[in-house]
Amino acid sequence: MAKELSFLTKRSEDYSKWYNELVVKADLAEQADVRGCMVIKPYGYAIWENIQRALDDRFKATGVQNVYFPMLIPKSYLSKEAEHVEGFAKECAVVTHYRLKANPDGEGVVVDPTAKLEEELIIRPTSETTIWNTFRNWIHSWRDLPLCCNQWCNVMRWEMRTRLFLRTSEFLWQEGHTAHATKEEAEARAKQMLDVYADFARDVMAVPVIRGVKSATERFAGALDTYTIEAMMQDGKALQSGTSHFLGQNFGRAFNVQFVNKENQLEYAWATSWGVSTRLMGALIMTHSDDNGLVLPPALAPIQVVLVPIYKGNELEAFDEKLGALASRLQAMGIRVKYDNADNKRPGFKFADYELKGVPVRLVMGGRDLENNTIELMRRDTLEKQTLSFDGIEDYVKQLLDEIQHNVYAKAKQRLDDNVHVCNDYEEFKSRVKNGGFYLCPWDGTEETEAQIKADTQATIRCVPYGYDQSDLGVDMVSGKPAVARVVVARSY
Amino acid sequence: MAKELSFLTKRSEDYSKWYNELVVKADLAEQADVRGCMVIKPYGYAIWENIQRALDDRFKATGVQNVYFPMLIPKSYLSKEAEHVEGFAKECAVVTHYRLKANPDGEGVVVDPTAKLEEELIIRPTSETTIWNTFRNWIHSWRDLPLCCNQWCNVMRWEMRTRLFLRTSEFLWQEGHTAHATKEEAEARAKQMLDVYADFARDVMAVPVIRGVKSATERFAGALDTYTIEAMMQDGKALQSGTSHFLGQNFGRAFNVQFVNKENQLEYAWATSWGVSTRLMGALIMTHSDDNGLVLPPALAPIQVVLVPIYKGNELEAFDEKLGALASRLQAMGIRVKYDNADNKRPGFKFADYELKGVPVRLVMGGRDLENNTIELMRRDTLEKQTLSFDGIEDYVKQLLDEIQHNVYAKAKQRLDDNVHVCNDYEEFKSRVKNGGFYLCPWDGTEETEAQIKADTQATIRCVPYGYDQSDLGVDMVSGKPAVARVVVARSY
Repeated sequence: MAKELSFLTKRSEDYSKWYNELVVKADLAEQADVRGCMVIKPYGYAIWENIQRALDDRFKATGVQNVYFPMLIPKSYLSKEAEHVEGFAKECAVVTHYRLKANPDGEGVVVDPTAKLEEELIIRPTSETTIWNTFRNWIHSWRDLPLCCNQWCNVMRWEMRTRLFLRTSEFLWQEGHTAHATKEEAEARAKQMLDVYADFARDVMAVPVIRGVKSATERFAGALDTYTIEAMMQDGKALQSGTSHFLGQNFGRAFNVQFVNKENQLEYAWATSWGVSTRLMGALIMTHSDDNGLVLPPALAPIQVVLVPIYKGNELEAFDEKLGALASRLQAMGIRVKYDNADNKRPGFKFADYELKGVPVRLVMGGRDLENNTIELMRRDTLEKQTLSFDGIEDYVKQLLDEIQHNVYAKAKQRLDDNVHVCNDYEEFKSRVKNGGFYLCPWDGTEETEAQIKADTQATIRCVPYGYDQSDLGVDMVSGKPAVARVVVARSY
Repeated sequence: MAKELSFLTKRSEDYSKWYNELVVKADLAEQADVRGCMVIKPYGYAIWENIQRALDDRFKATGVQNVYFPMLIPKSYLSKEAEHVEGFAKECAVVTHYRLKANPDGEGVVVDPTAKLEEELIIRPTSETTIWNTFRNWIHSWRDLPLCCNQWCNVMRWEMRTRLFLRTSEFLWQEGHTAHATKEEAEARAKQMLDVYADFARDVMAVPVIRGVKSATERFAGALDTYTIEAMMQDGKALQSGTSHFLGQNFGRAFNVQFVNKENQLEYAWATSWGVSTRLMGALIMTHSDDNGLVLPPALAPIQVVLVPIYKGNELEAFDEKLGALASRLQAMGIRVKYDNADNKRPGFKFADYELKGVPVRLVMGGRDLENNTIELMRRDTLEKQTLSFDGIEDYVKQLLDEIQHNVYAKAKQRLDDNVHVCNDYEEFKSRVKNGGFYLCPWDGTEETEAQIKADTQATIRCVPYGYDQSDLGVDMVSGKPAVARVVVARSY
């Protein structure tokens, strides 16, 4: 067996390499043969499913219903909203033909030139256009509103440089699309969904985020406002983890979606859209994991507790009875548990593998434990071991899982708080930002300043953050002109 | 409001038209603007989600893990398995370019000719090729087997004539793919998954099916055996509702997936694949529904019980208290319930709409019921009404939902049993088959006979059925040659 385990590059040596190795070695995902695409492996997909279920429940609790719209979009739809086409019509997969035929000149198959589409179709990079084209038929009166839809699907954006989960040409996501009778209601919905994302990140992913609003240049193509949650990775870089857009009447106008309002007048519908993607997997991995491998918050761990016996041949039966029963009790308490008594792997291999995979709690029982009615427990987040009485261990494990969930969040929150710095001086900013961290800087609100910062430091304005002091702004650290907001500036993924 | 309701074409007038109207009027799905594709609307998608959850749980209980593979497949992959390319390389969506650009000659965007792919990519019609190309890296030893994966995804087959749910160019499905060390194990898995489908159809969808094995001409392209479940629609036509394929070593060989077996010798891996799709929605609708609209088995109904008060202005508070509390009690019992006290729709409209949507149980309370502490119950499957005591109604509803689940199955099972006929005479067959029904006919096992039946009657051999008498076969009804099996012959969707 002796599959080569772990031996991850250390984070301190090369954070980027550590991430790439970890994703593959922990069996989360791998590069597909198709350029820029990924295969999500069973263990990675199980985490994604837990993310999906938790988010989906939260969406539904706000009155959102799931739907499915076609993945192919007529090319002309993209052109209907002026800014949208700028953002999305560039790098995309274009379907031009609908048939292959046997190669008349040799082996294999070739595109049948007679099967050319009249209008090319695009694999959806996002679905505002096709959805608003349909909403025209669904929305006639204010009584049809609000309309709150969501779909879980694949999307495609032809990316040049890709990294597993962080940026891939095809990725999985959910995209919510809502239509409203009033501007106020649409804006409130866009903000509400940002809160759903932020609360989910905190309570389920144990990832603290900063909420805020994007600058004009960083907005979604076609939005009047883009709200964002920004997480901080262990290298101090920002990872945009979810966005929610107030689209105004842009798509209503572009696709002529009008309704009769309460005053009996025709009006264009107001829109929002909001999404998170498999990118969240990257945020999860890079927030918590360490040089031994993944660290997973229990709420998302496919296996929350693993039980491993260390036995000699004739002892197995006794272990199976005792640990099998414990596994059943844990399962009955709603805990995802695995009893691993496989005899084709050494315990040391198992330990390293479950560490690599981030299983929150490991319980090990050897011959002496059997005699003493004890069990050894290791928690993955701190790597601490302790020997405990076997009796009542399930109750201890139950509360420990809660404690681990809180602890990994607290650790990440502390790191975030320690690395958000007020900074008013551009020289200081330039020297510090390359080492990571978020900087709260006064900004004059111009694109010029924003571009200058990016050119000088590769850092970008992540957002105008909520919950941070916006008084006493002073002057822009680059231009010296009066500042209009204090913004979060950071390098990002 | 007065949205035009129901007024469905009657099944007896035009079954096909009835189906098309029902899908749209019950808000399940509609044609998309993209040719042959559909929009699955919230109510339809909610049913599909219930199907997904129930199936997914059953897959996982057999040790299957979910994964995700890219939707784009290099053209050359399709050619690697000789039969597979025949079946799937024909009508498919071909991606040839990866960029659009502003139209230099006018408005909109055009395909950028400089962004042509070296090798065209196909939107997956099914994923055997891309998955087995990856399995080569995952499978080395018998210890890596079995490998049991499944994905829920969209697929695309460029269909010429499409019908909502039954046949669309893009559809949603699950595709399971497993690899095994032995032929026996692979065959057993293929049969096991057919049983999972058949049991699910019976217990959740309340759809009785005939299990069997396909003839060679009806096999999946690349399979050695295709197992099928065939359901009978109310017009007596067959609907193939799920298939499971024993693929032998065809894909192992085509993609060079070899493993070291227990005897330390290299061997090609053995394969299965199996899938069900949104076509199941068609089977569900056409099995149970009636001239008033959908009839849904409670196990899949998004709303199992609806509560409607009939009130005058000042009574609403009393109803809200009484029926709101009842709704909470039902919900606490795990029942999906809706309390509809909306004042912008007349009760008559609500009744027709919930009937159209197939809500299994309707509870109505009027002023007199309030006085008498009674409630009126209507069950959708029989349309029977009764007035019951309000006290304890929740327990009655709970057991009634079980009864309805059983009743709709029993009704469908009776219809199936009544319409499966032993038939040994071709003239009799030809005269009867146009009226629907399944015919158990002796077959000589040749493609010629099969083709003759199809040419004469449009009917096809659905399968060699399990659970029907295969003794005393006699001679083929067409050729007069000795029969090798008694097969189910029917017209189909």
